[in-house]
Amino acid sequence: MSADASHWRHGASLALLTDFYELTMGAGYLKERRAEQEVCFEYFFRSLPPHAGYGIAAGLEPFLDYLENLQFQEDDIAYLRSLGVFDEAFFDFLRDFRPTCRVRAVPEGTLVFPHEPIAQVEGAIFEAQLLETALLNMLNYQTLIATKAARICQSANGEPVLEFGLRRAHGPNGGLSGSRAAYIGGCSSTSNVLAGKLYGIPVAGTHAHSWVMSFNSELEAFRAFIRLYPERCVLLVDTYDTIASGVPNAITAYKEMRAQGIMARPAIRLDSGDLAKLSKIAYRMMTEAGLENPLIVASNDLEEDLIADLKRQGAKINSWGVGTHLITSHDCPALSGVYKLVALRENGQWQPRIKISSNETKATDPGYKRLTRYYNASNQPIGDVMGLHEEPQPADGVIPGRSRTQPHLEVRLRGAVRSEDLLEVVFEGGRRVGKAPSIHAVRQRALDQVAALPEEFKRLRNPEIYRVNLSPEVGKMKEELLKNPD
Amino acid sequence: MSADASHWRHGASLALLTDFYELTMGAGYLKERRAEQEVCFEYFFRSLPPHAGYGIAAGLEPFLDYLENLQFQEDDIAYLRSLGVFDEAFFDFLRDFRPTCRVRAVPEGTLVFPHEPIAQVEGAIFEAQLLETALLNMLNYQTLIATKAARICQSANGEPVLEFGLRRAHGPNGGLSGSRAAYIGGCSSTSNVLAGKLYGIPVAGTHAHSWVMSFNSELEAFRAFIRLYPERCVLLVDTYDTIASGVPNAITAYKEMRAQGIMARPAIRLDSGDLAKLSKIAYRMMTEAGLENPLIVASNDLEEDLIADLKRQGAKINSWGVGTHLITSHDCPALSGVYKLVALRENGQWQPRIKISSNETKATDPGYKRLTRYYNASNQPIGDVMGLHEEPQPADGVIPGRSRTQPHLEVRLRGAVRSEDLLEVVFEGGRRVGKAPSIHAVRQRALDQVAALPEEFKRLRNPEIYRVNLSPEVGKMKEELLKNPD
Repeated sequence: MSADASHWRHGASLALLTDFYELTMGAGYLKERRAEQEVCFEYFFRSLPPHAGYGIAAGLEPFLDYLENLQFQEDDIAYLRSLGVFDEAFFDFLRDFRPTCRVRAVPEGTLVFPHEPIAQVEGAIFEAQLLETALLNMLNYQTLIATKAARICQSANGEPVLEFGLRRAHGPNGGLSGSRAAYIGGCSSTSNVLAGKLYGIPVAGTHAHSWVMSFNSELEAFRAFIRLYPERCVLLVDTYDTIASGVPNAITAYKEMRAQGIMARPAIRLDSGDLAKLSKIAYRMMTEAGLENPLIVASNDLEEDLIADLKRQGAKINSWGVGTHLITSHDCPALSGVYKLVALRENGQWQPRIKISSNETKATDPGYKRLTRYYNASNQPIGDVMGLHEEPQPADGVIPGRSRTQPHLEVRLRGAVRSEDLLEVVFEGGRRVGKAPSIHAVRQRALDQVAALPEEFKRLRNPEIYRVNLSPEVGKMKEELLKNPD
Repeated sequence: MSADASHWRHGASLALLTDFYELTMGAGYLKERRAEQEVCFEYFFRSLPPHAGYGIAAGLEPFLDYLENLQFQEDDIAYLRSLGVFDEAFFDFLRDFRPTCRVRAVPEGTLVFPHEPIAQVEGAIFEAQLLETALLNMLNYQTLIATKAARICQSANGEPVLEFGLRRAHGPNGGLSGSRAAYIGGCSSTSNVLAGKLYGIPVAGTHAHSWVMSFNSELEAFRAFIRLYPERCVLLVDTYDTIASGVPNAITAYKEMRAQGIMARPAIRLDSGDLAKLSKIAYRMMTEAGLENPLIVASNDLEEDLIADLKRQGAKINSWGVGTHLITSHDCPALSGVYKLVALRENGQWQPRIKISSNETKATDPGYKRLTRYYNASNQPIGDVMGLHEEPQPADGVIPGRSRTQPHLEVRLRGAVRSEDLLEVVFEGGRRVGKAPSIHAVRQRALDQVAALPEEFKRLRNPEIYRVNLSPEVGKMKEELLKNPD
């Protein structure tokens, strides 16, 4: 059995799911007797995918899962020894290593915006560093896909979006993680049966062209499929010719079904050609044949703009199968999430740290921060503030702050009637804190939060930029550190 | 423990890594007493990523691995039962199911082109259908990434390309599969330690900004890193200011190292700013300080066009760290690979099948085919021909054929001196055939084949289109089936 199978099937450890430099730095911290240095790292992203006005946090649960099970096995250590870079003292340390950090994070399914901390890891530098890659891997991808799914579902305007992405996903787990995140972002179901089993996501599907091609005629293939699944049958009508053959054969088969007293909703899938035009013709043909209110599923490289355009054209489509563009976030297949050191504990006090680069906008926001969201009287979010834990943070009214990019400038949020602390302690003392919410609850949170977000942040193009401010104290700190970073 | 961990850690089955419709169709074939119908499916892609003139096949090994271990477990069946769609006869069938198909495939690391069969599954329709999703998932993504890696390595012109993608990969396995494919495509190493362990890929890395930020000064951080890893140290010089602070501190630290008699090659990494300009300044500063021939690694959203442009500008970079753009194939994050029924066995004879759509170019090439590559006297590939197994295929000279898109047109390849059958039997009787080649041998095959490919197919823009013809018999068959598909 090869490496892949043994990894997938025999409980291999994920301790080495990390970049090599995390281990060389880790061994370095140990040798320098700095491994226990307390630090705080923050995970945030610098920009949303193009045209997106909001993000949906996802990927935390798999990360906590990784964390709870993180332990170096003897075969991990044997592999590291084979590299000839590390010494036995390091291996002894790894053998005894168990995570003890505190993780704060925004719950999955929450609206998130650029530059704000979505997760924070507070603990010994060795450990906080080691976790970096797995955290980025899991949160970047799932947040990206939940965000894409939310935009697609927004375009579908409440009609079901079926996620069909597994065949174009980035490997088996790309498919699993992606199906999970797509459901969180608002999809109704997945075609991925393993995701259904593992996460409890509803599974759905139609049939393939090969079903039709394996029969002697299209009509015979349709009759057989209806006979098999009278209550959940969707006939794919474009194997040979949608209008000349597929739809007429579907009508014949459905009328035969009705004649037998089965009144299930007639349903077809269009997978090629001019979906707007074909759906209107198919709809007319079906209703004229007495098959009222047909379910017309469309697929074929759909994404949010295409769906919006099909709706603009009055397409008679009421269910959307979305694969490639969703599962890969095709127009932006990576979220620019990073994980940066924001504070070091020295003599019991958190000392802020900043990372500057020749690109000023990439300067990080220093300090171990809290994140507060403010709501107006209509219960709509109006802006977020990153403050210090020890700094008083007003709950309502006019909320003072500083600009992130120009921290010497005072800015404020007005009209706040309610505030919410977004970062919760989710991992502590080697265990997750509290019980994981169900994926259905997470999805509902995302749906509710997107619904509450004002329209200007949800436009498909040029959305308004949601305000994320620094608190007065973080602003002053950043202003000073930009002058004297080192 | 949640679903993710139990799946990753406790040997869960991949039998359900499939689209739901494969199972509904499968149950349908069984009920229709057609499950044993012998068929042939082919995997091919319709187009290369934009600007690519060739592809590199990858992903077969993980698929064979999945196949060898494919078996429905009781918990898979219990899950399927919970859906209320299938009957017990289907579960009995699944319980006894073991793959018996024959798989032919192009070896990993081979040049591949649009429309030609990269893998073929011959066997009972239930089984051939069930495999579809996993096959597409694994071959699409790895072929995509091996292809992207080959283009990036081509731009780097023989200089090492280090794959740094795990943090932006699509989930843990996106990272693993991607690192594997990137190495096959020509990368020198990966940062992904687990990929190193599982696949034997060399691992490499530098250090992060946080290493510098965790020390009281940049110089102190550099001194410590050199002390720890004198022989494989690469100093990241852009934490505060590359030219004013990073490079001078690196020079001081390396000169101190030299003074202690350690003569290792001085090495820095640039991760932001104007890489062309900064690399030239850094190179000059280092050589003027007596640190000759420095290794200068660049990173920061690099891809093949940026690397070519940096080389055009005379950048003093000699090692390339590539992450996001490689591991996601950022400009084209999905390969359009499909899996289509091409033939059915009836009365002991293979009957060709075709799939037509309103888009004529999407019509499939019918028949259970072989794939022959022809080489000229300079040992360069000149074109491929898809023929029937029973059809005589000339080995050299003028090779007759038909056009894929206009199968009534005769076309020919000229100057062939040698031919090669590309499809090998790789799985039969429930087991893989032969021993899996080492990943290093696969990578070498890809490097050799890319080197042998004429330059016109390797341009970064507007590459020549490699010829893939139908044999005379397949051409005639397609011509007829286009007229009478059903």
